[in-house]
Formats: sequence, C-alpha cells, structure tokens
Amino acid sequence: MKIKAGVIGASGYAGCELVRLLLQHPDVELMAISSHQYTGTYFYDLYPSFYQVCDLKFVENEEVIAQSDVIFASLPAGYSEPLARACFDAGKKFIDLGADFRLDDKDVYQQWYGQAYEDLELHKHQVYGLSEWHADQIKDAQIIGNPGCFPTSIELGLYPAITNQYIDLKTIILDSKSGTTGAGKSLTENTHFPRTNEAFAPYKVGAHRHTPEIEQLLSEFAQEEVKVTFTPHLLPINRGIVSTIYANLKADVSLEDIHATYTKAYANQPFVRVLPLGKIADLKFVKMSNYCDISLHIDAHTNRLIIVSCIDNMVKGAAGQAVQNMNLMFGLDQSTGLLQIAPSF
Amino acid sequence: MKIKAGVIGASGYAGCELVRLLLQHPDVELMAISSHQYTGTYFYDLYPSFYQVCDLKFVENEEVIAQSDVIFASLPAGYSEPLARACFDAGKKFIDLGADFRLDDKDVYQQWYGQAYEDLELHKHQVYGLSEWHADQIKDAQIIGNPGCFPTSIELGLYPAITNQYIDLKTIILDSKSGTTGAGKSLTENTHFPRTNEAFAPYKVGAHRHTPEIEQLLSEFAQEEVKVTFTPHLLPINRGIVSTIYANLKADVSLEDIHATYTKAYANQPFVRVLPLGKIADLKFVKMSNYCDISLHIDAHTNRLIIVSCIDNMVKGAAGQAVQNMNLMFGLDQSTGLLQIAPSF
Amino acid sequence: MKIKAGVIGASGYAGCELVRLLLQHPDVELMAISSHQYTGTYFYDLYPSFYQVCDLKFVENEEVIAQSDVIFASLPAGYSEPLARACFDAGKKFIDLGADFRLDDKDVYQQWYGQAYEDLELHKHQVYGLSEWHADQIKDAQIIGNPGCFPTSIELGLYPAITNQYIDLKTIILDSKSGTTGAGKSLTENTHFPRTNEAFAPYKVGAHRHTPEIEQLLSEFAQEEVKVTFTPHLLPINRGIVSTIYANLKADVSLEDIHATYTKAYANQPFVRVLPLGKIADLKFVKMSNYCDISLHIDAHTNRLIIVSCIDNMVKGAAGQAVQNMNLMFGLDQSTGLLQIAPSF
Amino acid sequence: MKIKAGVIGASGYAGCELVRLLLQHPDVELMAISSHQYTGTYFYDLYPSFYQVCDLKFVENEEVIAQSDVIFASLPAGYSEPLARACFDAGKKFIDLGADFRLDDKDVYQQWYGQAYEDLELHKHQVYGLSEWHADQIKDAQIIGNPGCFPTSIELGLYPAITNQYIDLKTIILDSKSGTTGAGKSLTENTHFPRTNEAFAPYKVGAHRHTPEIEQLLSEFAQEEVKVTFTPHLLPINRGIVSTIYANLKADVSLEDIHATYTKAYANQPFVRVLPLGKIADLKFVKMSNYCDISLHIDAHTNRLIIVSCIDNMVKGAAGQAVQNMNLMFGLDQSTGLLQIAPSF
Repeated sequence: MKIKAGVIGASGYAGCELVRLLLQHPDVELMAISSHQYTGTYFYDLYPSFYQVCDLKFVENEEVIAQSDVIFASLPAGYSEPLARACFDAGKKFIDLGADFRLDDKDVYQQWYGQAYEDLELHKHQVYGLSEWHADQIKDAQIIGNPGCFPTSIELGLYPAITNQYIDLKTIILDSKSGTTGAGKSLTENTHFPRTNEAFAPYKVGAHRHTPEIEQLLSEFAQEEVKVTFTPHLLPINRGIVSTIYANLKADVSLEDIHATYTKAYANQPFVRVLPLGKIADLKFVKMSNYCDISLHIDAHTNRLIIVSCIDNMVKGAAGQAVQNMNLMFGLDQSTGLLQIAPSF
Repeated sequence: MKIKAGVIGASGYAGCELVRLLLQHPDVELMAISSHQYTGTYFYDLYPSFYQVCDLKFVENEEVIAQSDVIFASLPAGYSEPLARACFDAGKKFIDLGADFRLDDKDVYQQWYGQAYEDLELHKHQVYGLSEWHADQIKDAQIIGNPGCFPTSIELGLYPAITNQYIDLKTIILDSKSGTTGAGKSLTENTHFPRTNEAFAPYKVGAHRHTPEIEQLLSEFAQEEVKVTFTPHLLPINRGIVSTIYANLKADVSLEDIHATYTKAYANQPFVRVLPLGKIADLKFVKMSNYCDISLHIDAHTNRLIIVSCIDNMVKGAAGQAVQNMNLMFGLDQSTGLLQIAPSF
Repeated sequence: MKIKAGVIGASGYAGCELVRLLLQHPDVELMAISSHQYTGTYFYDLYPSFYQVCDLKFVENEEVIAQSDVIFASLPAGYSEPLARACFDAGKKFIDLGADFRLDDKDVYQQWYGQAYEDLELHKHQVYGLSEWHADQIKDAQIIGNPGCFPTSIELGLYPAITNQYIDLKTIILDSKSGTTGAGKSLTENTHFPRTNEAFAPYKVGAHRHTPEIEQLLSEFAQEEVKVTFTPHLLPINRGIVSTIYANLKADVSLEDIHATYTKAYANQPFVRVLPLGKIADLKFVKMSNYCDISLHIDAHTNRLIIVSCIDNMVKGAAGQAVQNMNLMFGLDQSTGLLQIAPSF
Repeated sequence: MKIKAGVIGASGYAGCELVRLLLQHPDVELMAISSHQYTGTYFYDLYPSFYQVCDLKFVENEEVIAQSDVIFASLPAGYSEPLARACFDAGKKFIDLGADFRLDDKDVYQQWYGQAYEDLELHKHQVYGLSEWHADQIKDAQIIGNPGCFPTSIELGLYPAITNQYIDLKTIILDSKSGTTGAGKSLTENTHFPRTNEAFAPYKVGAHRHTPEIEQLLSEFAQEEVKVTFTPHLLPINRGIVSTIYANLKADVSLEDIHATYTKAYANQPFVRVLPLGKIADLKFVKMSNYCDISLHIDAHTNRLIIVSCIDNMVKGAAGQAVQNMNLMFGLDQSTGLLQIAPSF
C-alpha cells in the first residue's frame, strides 16, 4: 500500500518541487496540497508544467493533514508549530522544510527569527534531517526539521574533515553561491530579471540565518563549539549551490589521505559523490538531482584545505532531502524515487 | 526480459540525452555506447552527471550493434546508411536521429545535404518517426528516421489545421526559436558564451535544412504540395523550441471550433497538450519533458491563425521521441519511461 | 550655453537611461528629475551605478518643469497631458516617452488605452518622433510623442519597402522579440528571475498596444490603410529587440535592388545601418547604442521578403531616440551625445 | 594634437575593448591595429558593432608601431618582449595587457609561465600599472605591465587594509568570481554556451597564474612577504569580477574606522568608490565602466574583515586601466575618455 502524502504550502518553489517528486515516487500517493493564498485554484494554473499531469486543487491545511500519513510543510518561519502539533497528536509524520524545527537552542531561534518557540515540549521530538548524519534518529522520528540548502552543502562538505580532526576549527570560511530559486517565489527587487541577470554580489554578509544552523551541526561533528564566517552570494541562474569551503590544515596530512577518508565516509551513501582528485565539482552536474558532489583540494603554499561542495538547492537542499527522509521514516530504501540523473545541459 | 539498447554517436548532446532516458527506462537495458572520437573513455568523463551512475565506456560501433536489439544513431549527415544496413540485415531495429532517413525524395536529400543516398533499397524501408502521425507504420518499421526538432514542433502544431482545411496553404510562415543545444556539442563562434549570451538573431534565413522535411510532412497532411517560409532563430538559453506559426484562415471558422478540433485530434496522444484558450504556450513548461504544448490564437483584424508550439528540442525534438518510437516498435505503451514532469524553474 | 533638461518619471528604466545619456551629453545640463514614488531620494540610491557620478535627488514635477528648457516624461498612459500643457504654455519643449502623444486618432487611443484625450487642442501640436521620418516637423515641434520600442524597429525596417511599393501590404507579419527591460521596473510574475530565465514565449498575441501605432505609421508610409499581424515575444535577456518582418514581394524585384534602395534611403541617417547582403542583424551589436541594424533577405521559393531589424529597446527604442529628437529640436547635429559604440560582448 | 595610438593583438576581447575606448577618447587618434590571425580583414567583420563606425583593417605589428606614439599589446604570454624592445628603442610608449611585464622576479615568471625573460635589461624599465598605487612611476614610464583583472580587484580592495596594518597577513583568503570574457575569445569547452550557461564552479583551484602577481603587490603594500589563498570561479555572465576577500582583524578596530580610512585613501581617486556602510558592492553597477566599487563588512562573531571589490574585468581589469595609464603617461587627467557610466541594466 502506498504512503499517503500531503504538502502544506505547496504553492512555493520547494512545495512545487515536492509535488513533482512525490508524483513520480513509486511508493507514494499524493493526496492533497494546500496554500494559504491559492485555495481553490488548480495546481497547474500556478505551474503549467503540471497541466494534464496533476489535477489537484489547493485545499485547506486541515484537509491535507486529514488525508495524509506524512505531511510536508514549506512555510515561513513561525507557522509550522501548530501544524506539527496536530500531526504529532494524530500519530502522523511531519517533515518541515522551514526553519522551525532545525535549531536545538530556543534562544538562538528567537535571536535569529525574532519569535519564540511556543510549544516547547514538541521540540523535544524534533530531529535534524541531514539524512547522511542522523539516519538512525530519522527512522524513528515523527518530526523532522529538514536542513537548509546552504547548511546541507556545507555540512556534507565538512563532516569528514571535522570528525577526522584534519582542520583548525577556528579558520573555517564558507563562501557560498546560490541560484535564485533559493530566494523563493515572492517578487522582490533582487529577483527582478533585469536587476538580477548579468549581476552578482554577496548578500546578508555576516548576517544570514543559516549561520546558527551550520554552527550547530559543525559543533556537533566536532564535539566542541565551532564558529564560522559564512557569506552567501546570489548567482544569476535558477538552481544550484556551490559552497567553497576554506580551512587551515592542522597537521601534515596529504590530499590523498583526505580523499581516501572522504571516499570511505560516503561509501554507502547513494547521494554523496566524492569526485576523483583533479576534478572540480560544478553545480551543473547535480542540477535537478539529489546528489551532492564534493571535490577536495589543497593550496599547498598556504597549507589550506579547499572543499567544493555542490547541490541542487531545491532537491538535495529542500524537497529531495525531505523525500529521502520520508523514505528513511517509512523503511524504504532511501534512494527510492530520487535517482533522477542530472541533465548535463 | 528487457530490451537491449545501444547508442551510436553517444558523445553528442542527443546521444547524451538518449543515455539519460534509456538508463531510467524500466524496460530497457543500455548495453553499449560508441563515439568515434572518445573510444575507450568513460561516459562520465565527458558528462560528469553520470559519475557513479553509469560505468559504460565508449566502444566501437560494431560492438554496439552486436549487443543490442535496438540501435539509436546520432551522427552527422551521411554516416548512418552502412550502420542501418548492418542492423537491417541482422534483423535489428535502427532509429536514426540524424537526417539520413527522413526525406522520401533522394534528390531533395542530395540538394540539401550535398551527398547522395547510396543504398537506395534500404530507404524503401524507412519510416518517418513522428509518433503521433505514423504510429501504425512505426510499430512495424525496422528503420526510423526520427524527426528533426524544428519539424516536430511545426508538424504537430499544424497537423489538425491542415487536415481540417482551416488555412490557406500558400500563407504559412514559420518563425521558430531554439535553444543552443540544437547547435550541438561542437565548439563554434555562434555558441561561444560571451558571443551568444545576451544576443539574439535569426540564422540561415530562408536556407535551413529542415525546410524540405517540414514541407514533406505538411504536403502529406494536405495531400498537395505545400511551400513554407521557415526562419530559425537562436535563443540564448540551453533548451527548448517555440515555433510561432502564422497562416491565413480560409473561411469563417471560430477559434472555439479550431480549439475543439485540436483537442479532439490529440485526445489520445499522451504527449501533445492543447492548452485552454487564453493561455500561451511557453517552452519553460515542456523543458526536460517529452510534451509538446500548443496554444491557439486568432488575430481577428487580419483573420490570421497564430499557433504557438513548444517542445524540448533534446527530448520530444530528439531523444525522447526516439524512445517513444522504440516503445511503439516493441509494443510498449508509448509513454513508458517518458513521463518526467517538466520542472517549472 | 547648455540646454537645460529635466526628466519627469526618472525612476523607471527609460528615465534612468535618459539620465545616463543626458549626463554624458556635451551640450546638456541635467537640472532636475522627478518621481512620484521616490521624491526626496537620491537617484543613486535607486541606481547605484550613479554613486559619486550624479548627486540629484528626485523632486516634484513642477520643479523639473520650472528649471528646464526641455522636459522628458516617462509615465504610464494618461499622465502626460497636464504636464505637456504646462510646458506648452510656458514655451518649453516636451518629449513624451509614453503613448499619450503618438496616436493621431483619439478614438483609437481610447480603444487601446481605455481613456480619452482630455485636452484635444493640445494634440494638434503633437509630432510623432520617428527621427528618420519626421525630422523636419520635429525641428519645429514643441510636443513630441516619442515612438514605442517595437514600432521603431518595425517602422525603420519597413519604410523603404513600403514607400517603394515592393510588398503586398496585406501580407505583413511582424514577429518581434524583446528583452525584459521592455516590461519595465515594476515587479511582475513574468519578470521574476526564476520564471523568466531559460523561458521564452509570445505575449499579448494579437492584442499588443503597439499595433495601432505601427499601423498608423505604415499607413502613412503607404498612403493607404495597412493592417498587420504583430506578435511580441519576451526574450530572457535584458535589452534589445529583433523584429523579423515578413511580406510577399509584389513584383519581380531582386534582393540587390532592394538592398540598394535601403542603402540609399538611409545614406544620410547616422543611426540606421543597412548591413551588407549575406549578413544577419543581431541585437548584440546594437545594444547600449542608438543604432538600428537592418538586414535584408528573400525566401526565393515563396518569393517573400524577410527583413530583420534590431535596436536597443531602451536607447533607439526610448531614451536615445528622445535625445536624438531633442538634438533636432535645438538645432544640434542629431547624433550629438549619442555615438556610443555597442560593446561587442 | 592628438595622441597617436595603436593596438597589437586587437582581435581579442581586451583588444576590442581598447579599440572601443580609444575611438571614443577625445585626445586620441587610433592609427592602426594588428592581429596575427586576421591581417587584411576589417575590424568590423570580426566585431559588427563597429560597422560604419571604424574602417580600420588589421595590419602587421610593424605598421602599428611605426604609426603610433603609444602601443597597446594584448598577446599571449611570451610574445611582448621583442615588440616592447622595438618601441622602447624608438622612444615610444608600450602598454602591455599581458603578463610579460608584471612580475619583478624572473624566476617567478618562469615558474608560472613556463618560459624565461629573454631581454633582462628591458625589464628594469617596466612599471606595474596599478594606476592608483604607482601613478608617479607610471607618469615617467615607457613600459607598463598592465595589471591582471583579478589582481586589480584584489589589490584595490586590500591596499588600505594592509598599509594600515588592520589585518593578519597570514589569514588572507581571496574568493573571486569572473564573467566569461575573462577566458577570452578562443573557443573552449568551458565557454561553450550549453556547458557554461546555468553552471558555476571554481577553476584552477590553488593554481591560478594571477597568484604570484597578487602576492607581489600585497607584499609591496605590507613591506613583508604575503602569501594568499586565491580561488577563481567562472560566472555564467559576460563581464565583471567580484572578489570576496577575507582576513582576520588584528586588533580591535571598528568598521567605521576602517571605512573612514578607505574613504580617505581613495578620496582623490576618480575610479575607486568606497560604498557607504550597509551597502554591498555588485558587479552590476560597474559593468562597462572603469569604476572599482568596494564595500566593507565585519563578521563580528569571528572578528573577520570581509571586503567586496567589484570591477569590469574588461575595463578597469584590462582596457580601461590601460587607457587610464596612457592618460597618466601623456599628462592628461587620468579620467579622460573613461567616464562612461555603468548602465544599471
């Protein structure tokens, strides 16, 4: 019998991508979708790709929850708690693509998101959904805080280097670049075509909300507090993230050894590809797919490790990883329905 | 048992797309691929999307033919005949993505391609692979001339209008625009990024090789000779074709009637979507998919019909339609392995 | 002494482009700029290119008029009349980049723009500002209706063909493609980057407001009523228009003769370049410049003339032509301040 | 009397941009241009923007030198020495846009460029042409090594921070992103449109030839040896560089103080704009112009300085700075002919 799935907040980009992946998932039936703004509208009126493919209309959140075993939510910060509570109490699984169930520390959440956790008891049940790191906890979880897009690329990129103590934790610099879908479906000056096209710049320098999430995970890897400098940039493309990660090497470790460690660390992970030495990861080759490509480099004359980590921000960085987590939660092979190959052009 | 498939000329863009589609096809096993230039190289070295996904190396053409039940070829004009003959004699099926088996008239081929058909007997067995028009012949064919990208968009766009005698055949003007993958993988001045990006122009005005192919099919629809003006343009994007088609309406037929005729004509075709009146087809919503979206319009004050027809040039315009034809030839549902939904961004 | 110039509605794209051109014009002093929405703001806060280059703040319309000899207005339809009246009565020159002074027929204006001319007397003084066609009237005019972007490309492309009676006036089809700045600075779904990028489609098929303007001018060229089919398309680039123009040739005229006629017609026009036969006009080579490039082609087997006409929609299609008209009105060489060369990449 | 200028290697992108700037320079007459590959061809056949604007044909190098007071050369590494010698002996000025006269240390040149300086005496006369740093030497120089594009953005970005000893010199990380014109006019896999478009990645990680040039200048600023990690990335746009520069702050200096220092350092430099605090530099607003925009940021929780420095790689990063140096060498105001305002879209 198929898993009954629903999507709350399906009118946004992550929601749209969830609908696309769930419709093509062999073990899932997409039951219902909701949107505050578009209730009553056909999904294909918003996204014409789905004309004659999906006949769902946006309904109310309550109906989505009622019809589904697993509920995905893609909402602005602060809106997920009551929905997660309703699902939790009804024994359903809740996967939140927003930020409301990612941070362990309620004060950090309040500081960065300007509002407080209301239902503190609920947060005790949340599991951070980095599939490759927390798989065992994810399997048994009822509430998943699905990772942010930048954090996913960075955490997968740094995890073996940190757990193997290769790098000086005080020297981590994260220079990330994302396509514009990361900014969402809402119209903004910064995503107006004539403004964005043929432009490039960083944004929210030293002040992006993904910083505490990244630091939480890196600290968990390191078993000590880690602070980072994180600078996101907006690329004039639709999809994809490249994180260029810098850190001083602690000791005299060779690139070959680091590469072997990474290869081993991800040997059983279907979606993390450690590229052969000499290759450089490019978001081109993970676009539309759930893969994370990682390439490893050393700047010998300064003895710095440079890690290039690429994902599709809408797939592995959002909807794809959410489906991967659903697979884990329902005992499926984690790659079910997610093996789309990135088109090469 | 799975269909054993092989791709000759797999290093080009259409070949790459075939590999991507065949690897994801539930009833196919991709046995072997060849490339004149890259024999011995891993496919993923050319297209890193396939790293850890496909371990095939390019081999010789002969090996591809030997291992396969169906052979796809994507080669420059003039190279397919001997390969098709070898397949034909061995009782295998041959689907040619080039131009060598599309034209009925050997003189027209020679005029536009500068070389002659050598194996005239072989061409008696060729079937033009417009899946929606020639399905019955395709089912029994051993050699398919897979349609060109521009012709596919135009022929599907015009077929109901012509067979229903709605338009004056002397007034057909075809203004087509294609993404750059249509120009192929070879490096050219016209596809050098700084030259192509933020540029736009027609090319080969009044002289594109797809003109005789289009006229052959439109004449077949009309049962009389049709001549057209066809102007291709190069869009600074990767994929997709929009053909804007103009023709004078012959009589006083309403847009609603024309729309009803089109809807009926394509009612049982899974890949042709006639959009509701008032919508305008956009290549955005067919990209990466095998769909052809058609929208219908009348310019009332000049009594002209305007048809907008969109496809992905690499899928419905090449590899996707080739797989659709393979499905027909092997008795599968024609949509098997081809129901990927176009991402909306 | 320099011409004192002002710009009303300077916060939009055409306004911004006017500021850029006027600041670099050797015989102009830019006195004041206005914007309904941004009064009190520095221009460079809206357009950071102008930081340390231009210290103007947006002021009230009245102040712009008071300080200037010539006033450019770039406003939505219906807002220009009272401003033009104020300038007219004060003996100042008024160049309107909107649509309010382009159409001769008040009923046509009302039909397409949904509102009426109020000050009918004022419209008797308006001159349509196609610099190459109406130069003599422009020189003496006080009120200019600066042409629309699409009409400029089309009218310059067709003028010699029509006045020389080469074409069948009933067969004119205009397939135009424009960059996104043509849609303006306002945020819209159709110019949201992830929507627009890697997309392409026509819009307002058979219903674009530039149609009556085009027909007015072509009828003026022909001295009889001309009706056209005009289809605009949105290109995923910032700037530039390509109009591909089709018409049946009336008699047996050679391409060489047509080319000679065009070359002669534009011999003394500094901004219209008739390309050598065999070349194809590309918007790439007119971007950021005031040039209109025209290439000429015949589709011999249908005896159709194909004219490709390219401009930068923001320069020759808006601000540049406005400055060219100002030059004519003040007795300067019409190319003064406008000889920027299009960058080739 | 005008300066007689010539360009050797004018067929490449930097050469084309030099032609564009020199043609519009009020005190220059462009006498002759050369190209090894295109001798005898009209410049406008290569770059149609120049049709009816510039009637020069490519001639031999000797003719360029003979006709000019100042010779610009834009050639692959190793080709400039004999030409510079010929100019030097003839008492002419030579501005090299390549790498042959940038590096002080012949061994470093040989290590990175794989060939030796031949004419060692000549290199004693070379001056590194960072206009804002070496203006006094440039004025009297006969041979200029015009800076590389990445180095220009980085050196201008770091100069006040280093000379004021704000930063720990061992912690400098340079994450740079460049448009594709930086890769030149030659066709390469990496600049083939379907490959480059919608892609993004670093290249030559830890191994780019601009590294020694950057280190030479930063060491000169610091009066001690500086080593850096420099990672270039290829942006899918035509023009512009953003360098995101990271360094640990040495002491407790405020962002306001650093900003004041930068503002003062560049107060008399017409082409370096230190943006107000709170703004972030974007290559959009320097494109097609000679400006370098710098924004300053501190990541407080790690006490790192983040400098964002943007230029147009073809203007301030190549042809524009070369003309700026010519202006200095001939006693003109350094901004003559270079005050083009960046279009904002």
